Amino acid sequence: MPLSRTVRCICIEISKKRFNPKSLEKLEIIPASQSCQHIEIIATMKKTGEKRCLNPESKAVENLLKAVSKERSKRSP
Amino acid sequence: MPLSRTVRCICIEISKKRFNPKSLEKLEIIPASQSCQHIEIIATMKKTGEKRCLNPESKAVENLLKAVSKERSKRSP
Repeated sequence: MPLSRTVRCICIEISKKRFNPKSLEKLEIIPASQSCQHIEIIATMKKTGEKRCLNPESKAVENLLKAVSKERSKRSP
Repeated sequence: MPLSRTVRCICIEISKKRFNPKSLEKLEIIPASQSCQHIEIIATMKKTGEKRCLNPESKAVENLLKAVSKERSKRSP
């Protein structure tokens, strides 16, 4: 059975569609591992529950990271 | 029926246990919304599948964010 080179990666293709970060229900970050050599970022949409693989440099990812950093700095003394 | 003030938040308590970021299978980031007013970060452990709510300022979260940023800067020209 021929195996894909990225057989264990979840994302087959990266969505290039733009979307409003507010329509994001959650963002899953799957670290690089032996089974998939790059980080994977999967967005779940609020209304449809649709899952999309995102580019780490997308606006939505950027905004989420900013939100987390903001939360971090808020809590740190 | 008495309602908790944070009835729609997923995390009831934040885990303070330390763990090796390598044992992290994935990290879920749930943005603040009308139903839960703060960002929630849920880690799933590799071996056990156990889910833990994390403090946004924890080491694991910091490392994951660094990894994402690294990926971002790698891909940007």
